[in-house]
Amino acid sequence: MIFDKHNVEGETRVNVCGVTFGGSELIIIAGPCTVESRGQMLETALAVKEAGAKFLRGGAFKPRASPYSFQGLCSEGLAILAEAREKTGLPVVTEVLDTAQVAEVAAVADMLQVGSRNMHNTALLKAVGASGKAVLIKRGMSATLQEHLLAAEYVLNAGAREVVLCERGIRTFENALRFTLDLSAVPLLKERTWLPVLVDPSHATGRAALVPAMARAAVACGADGLMMEVHAHPDQALCDGEQSLSPEMFNKAIIELRAVAKAVGRIV
Amino acid sequence: MIFDKHNVEGETRVNVCGVTFGGSELIIIAGPCTVESRGQMLETALAVKEAGAKFLRGGAFKPRASPYSFQGLCSEGLAILAEAREKTGLPVVTEVLDTAQVAEVAAVADMLQVGSRNMHNTALLKAVGASGKAVLIKRGMSATLQEHLLAAEYVLNAGAREVVLCERGIRTFENALRFTLDLSAVPLLKERTWLPVLVDPSHATGRAALVPAMARAAVACGADGLMMEVHAHPDQALCDGEQSLSPEMFNKAIIELRAVAKAVGRIV
Amino acid sequence: MIFDKHNVEGETRVNVCGVTFGGSELIIIAGPCTVESRGQMLETALAVKEAGAKFLRGGAFKPRASPYSFQGLCSEGLAILAEAREKTGLPVVTEVLDTAQVAEVAAVADMLQVGSRNMHNTALLKAVGASGKAVLIKRGMSATLQEHLLAAEYVLNAGAREVVLCERGIRTFENALRFTLDLSAVPLLKERTWLPVLVDPSHATGRAALVPAMARAAVACGADGLMMEVHAHPDQALCDGEQSLSPEMFNKAIIELRAVAKAVGRIV
Amino acid sequence: MIFDKHNVEGETRVNVCGVTFGGSELIIIAGPCTVESRGQMLETALAVKEAGAKFLRGGAFKPRASPYSFQGLCSEGLAILAEAREKTGLPVVTEVLDTAQVAEVAAVADMLQVGSRNMHNTALLKAVGASGKAVLIKRGMSATLQEHLLAAEYVLNAGAREVVLCERGIRTFENALRFTLDLSAVPLLKERTWLPVLVDPSHATGRAALVPAMARAAVACGADGLMMEVHAHPDQALCDGEQSLSPEMFNKAIIELRAVAKAVGRIV
Repeated sequence: MIFDKHNVEGETRVNVCGVTFGGSELIIIAGPCTVESRGQMLETALAVKEAGAKFLRGGAFKPRASPYSFQGLCSEGLAILAEAREKTGLPVVTEVLDTAQVAEVAAVADMLQVGSRNMHNTALLKAVGASGKAVLIKRGMSATLQEHLLAAEYVLNAGAREVVLCERGIRTFENALRFTLDLSAVPLLKERTWLPVLVDPSHATGRAALVPAMARAAVACGADGLMMEVHAHPDQALCDGEQSLSPEMFNKAIIELRAVAKAVGRIV
Repeated sequence: MIFDKHNVEGETRVNVCGVTFGGSELIIIAGPCTVESRGQMLETALAVKEAGAKFLRGGAFKPRASPYSFQGLCSEGLAILAEAREKTGLPVVTEVLDTAQVAEVAAVADMLQVGSRNMHNTALLKAVGASGKAVLIKRGMSATLQEHLLAAEYVLNAGAREVVLCERGIRTFENALRFTLDLSAVPLLKERTWLPVLVDPSHATGRAALVPAMARAAVACGADGLMMEVHAHPDQALCDGEQSLSPEMFNKAIIELRAVAKAVGRIV
Repeated sequence: MIFDKHNVEGETRVNVCGVTFGGSELIIIAGPCTVESRGQMLETALAVKEAGAKFLRGGAFKPRASPYSFQGLCSEGLAILAEAREKTGLPVVTEVLDTAQVAEVAAVADMLQVGSRNMHNTALLKAVGASGKAVLIKRGMSATLQEHLLAAEYVLNAGAREVVLCERGIRTFENALRFTLDLSAVPLLKERTWLPVLVDPSHATGRAALVPAMARAAVACGADGLMMEVHAHPDQALCDGEQSLSPEMFNKAIIELRAVAKAVGRIV
Repeated sequence: MIFDKHNVEGETRVNVCGVTFGGSELIIIAGPCTVESRGQMLETALAVKEAGAKFLRGGAFKPRASPYSFQGLCSEGLAILAEAREKTGLPVVTEVLDTAQVAEVAAVADMLQVGSRNMHNTALLKAVGASGKAVLIKRGMSATLQEHLLAAEYVLNAGAREVVLCERGIRTFENALRFTLDLSAVPLLKERTWLPVLVDPSHATGRAALVPAMARAAVACGADGLMMEVHAHPDQALCDGEQSLSPEMFNKAIIELRAVAKAVGRIV
């Protein structure tokens, strides 16, 4: 397997537009769950950059359980993301839901995200792997770690080299939170693969108040970075507002993370 | 919601090429996991027809965990399925993995299957819903029943009317079998929706020896039909041979099912 | 292992007070979740006997999640169970929660129940196994089948010979019902052990309306009997009224079960 | 509820023999899974004390899945624990499996442990709560956090005041490790209760190599202490050797923990 760390020699860090995943610096990807408007995205993007984020996130195409829920601004959202990148200088990752969207999204995004609901979508994995773009693969909500690695293998086998994994919580009987964040996945994946491993504490917990603590835990056990939801005005969010940090909360979380990162020999 | 049985009046049965799902007759869909060769498919198709199957199944495009596993015969497999339909007179259901395949598959299949790994693939759900074909939606391996129904809603909302649900086992801590068949889903779904509910005991258990018992249980609790894997020569199967019934086992299973079906006022 | 069917010769049925588990007759154990009063228990006991139950159930000591919930009538409940047995002629199974209660409960009950919450309580398993009484062991809510069998091994190894297993649902992510009834456990356990296997559809589903369907399914896949909650007046139940059948519902369920049982070569 | 932090005023730390749980100092409980011999226990106890442990652990009575597995040295094990306490000056926590053992174990131990398999054993919870001893309650392997808190409520309601919770992993579909450590439980429990919250990364992961990382993560997200398995010679362990740290590994882990603890304003 290409993902296997025992099969690789030399450089194993992943570079995307000058951002290095897997090195001593922890990479914080931040932004809103969904691009809702030009104002919301730009305000949030500038705020997260100032706080220390190195990558922007924001959904233009949203995979919603119900067909009647807001499905994202789609192409208009992509244009806003492009402007946010230009204004901040930060590269952008955004989700792609279908093979037919890959070219359109790849024209704007620096990194394509395969979301949890599509981790087993092998056609999409092949397409993003052949797109020439970096790829971030979220763990399926009931995917084993082996399946997560094999999803990466589909992408690697299709030609991609800049591939990053992201733990985001699994489905269990515990219903106090949206998902159960499986942080043991971090050291376990790091044993097996050279691929950088990120953690998304926002989707896992679904509650902003718990995100900073779980972000610290992720860093403490070896995560190479974090994916965090920040919204300029969480109480006005169209989607997942409960799990979004305000810029102030995000700023405070980053400061706390710096101390933990230093304790494990990393920097933020 | 369109799926809601309380919102519908009149006829709620689903007719596909003369086969009626949701009526007093239980519909048995049978065939190999994967179309492996012309000989294997035709031999199996004739055998399952003779035993009482009303619909053929067979995978041309296979979603495999590893990119290095056999991915199906693809277009060649579709042609073989078309021949099997012609030879047997039975309609065909086969899985479609990507929006880009919908037209090609719809040109051959009578019913498009959205597999467990794609149940959350909203782009695909919309595309199959707009294809003009009947659609069979397998439950995601960690999907709640509400999410299964909402997946159907995507398909219905896109224009389809012939939609069928299929329970196929969920991921749990129990590892004695591949999945845990959640038969309580059958009466629970029937309370909420007018959509017919099938059960696939083959993928759920992963072991041929347990399939007949779980098929009987499915019928006893109200399933409208079954999806069963049959292979003319299970010991030679390229994929999932352990869970495939031989034609003899299938024939015996159908005979047993007839008795149980009669006990609950249905016929096979 | 003593439980292993490959290690046993000759008779493998389990006889308790003239009731034979594991033979061609399906054994229905019925009664209220909890003994609430003399009137409630006696009325229910007579009703279930008339409908065809062969064994009475009723909790005197209840394992409740909260210390402030009703914990059962305790010794008074045992006395009522003794009277119910006398009045109906049916043997009684009731739960024992602690080694210190074994002698007291064994003085009244014909069969001691180890509940789901105590399936891993090895001290209790040893004590009931040495009590000289028959033992019914419910599956722990997150116990593997292997662990369920090993719990039985504790009881068998302590000297008991009349031991019966009972599937009652496991914890999974699906929260539409209390537990996920794992019916595949039935044929799987029957492959491995000579111990009779019962199913409790009442606790598994937590909803009376689904109990008859799941009872039929249990019988169809090979269960040797059922454990069902019946309450003379479910709307007045102190505990688990939502999952209790009324005598009328129970009577109807038994009639339906007779047809399914016959279809699989059993009688009720 | 007594456990509720909103119902308590004043001091909420838990003091046991001079060790304070819930204060700024993180409490490390360490020792072997099982007391195997006098030499093994004393050697391990001295080593963990030197490395910084504040409390000793060691099982005298072991809850094993099979009745034929080693069940612990029982009373002899308790005597060895007493000697280890005397030699090191560290207080001792050990598991009690049955109400009939409470007095015997309480005569030796400073803190009684209710293990994961007995978390729902309400008779035992009441008995340890009335014993006059401090109590450590491990989360059941499929217990919700609410059930974990209610188990504590049984103990508190029976009279105990020195009660500590311990997260130790839950059962999920992921089978790469023994259990899935649910670290989100830490900040969530801390929101709801004044009870100190520990984490046991040894049982959760089942692999020594992952224990230090998960211990760091536990501290980073707010755990009040850790329970870690250390064995003087892990390769000779009778039970759970794979998850035991050697004294050298433990010493190194503590040093790493000190840095993380400091980063979150705690000390080890």
